[in-house]
Amino acid sequence: MNARVAVPLPKAYRLLNHGPTVLVSSAHAGRRNVMAAAWNMALDFDPPKVAVVIDKSTLTRELVEASGEFVLNVPSRQQAALTLAVGTQSGREIDKFAKVGVGETASMVGAPLIEGCLGWLECRVIVEPHIQQTYDLFLAEVVAAWADPAVFSNGRWHFPDAQQRSIHYQAGGSFFATGDAFEV
Amino acid sequence: MNARVAVPLPKAYRLLNHGPTVLVSSAHAGRRNVMAAAWNMALDFDPPKVAVVIDKSTLTRELVEASGEFVLNVPSRQQAALTLAVGTQSGREIDKFAKVGVGETASMVGAPLIEGCLGWLECRVIVEPHIQQTYDLFLAEVVAAWADPAVFSNGRWHFPDAQQRSIHYQAGGSFFATGDAFEV
Repeated sequence: MNARVAVPLPKAYRLLNHGPTVLVSSAHAGRRNVMAAAWNMALDFDPPKVAVVIDKSTLTRELVEASGEFVLNVPSRQQAALTLAVGTQSGREIDKFAKVGVGETASMVGAPLIEGCLGWLECRVIVEPHIQQTYDLFLAEVVAAWADPAVFSNGRWHFPDAQQRSIHYQAGGSFFATGDAFEV
Repeated sequence: MNARVAVPLPKAYRLLNHGPTVLVSSAHAGRRNVMAAAWNMALDFDPPKVAVVIDKSTLTRELVEASGEFVLNVPSRQQAALTLAVGTQSGREIDKFAKVGVGETASMVGAPLIEGCLGWLECRVIVEPHIQQTYDLFLAEVVAAWADPAVFSNGRWHFPDAQQRSIHYQAGGSFFATGDAFEV
């Protein structure tokens, strides 16, 4: 498990602002799952909210609707193969946690924190049945947020190590790493 | 104006899949505007849909609600200062098009295409009054998509030139460039 420190809630949106692909972890009644989601974004600053697309066919959808909770985990480049694997295999067919390390227990939700990630957003679903059903679109409030202080501190990402960068999924097994930081 | 070629609609989501910050351009009744939006994502493959947050205080909101249309323009690193400027100044106070070059006319919507961008998604709002009002969240169908073939072809981004990469806003004038591509 990487180190993790609390991110103040009004800064939690910055974990997602640059558009990384995330892992969505969920749990309900003794079952748990993890899937990849490139289609996520911040939705508000304070209280922080997020939006994420969770397809009807997934076990994650079932667990998120039953529990009303999930965690958005920000994986590193070292976890790209794992991210692709959990994004292409169904939790109905395999136990994804045979591959994915479960880290410490979340503070506010029942979904697990994924080991080795760079940041974590603990989320409670804001129930909006029409858009969930019509667009597979889930809105949620971020109720706790954490980051590895080696790569996120004082409200900013900084990536000293090329392998410990966030990642951005393209298609067909191809990703981009988060690139150079610059100021304008 | 960069070259541009049509992106087949089922591949349009790939223009946004890696989470770039975009420029939202809009027009209605002889007025036009452009703003920056880090909070955007793909929402569906085919027909392609997108989601974007457009704050109530903005002129863009007024023009998008009146016209039911907008364009998501994917700016390059060369356009980062411009992206920050149009993200921090209001179109109610200045004519942003004094700085932003307007490119060719869009094919399906009245909003302008921004000159020098890497990709463009012409969008028609899917009217969902409750989430527009409650969360400033707009859903839209992509009705045409374009990209500069120097950086996007065969459904994939490729960035041979460091200045011609997409960008990812962090906070306080700080961006990340899209980084190295890699396969897993």
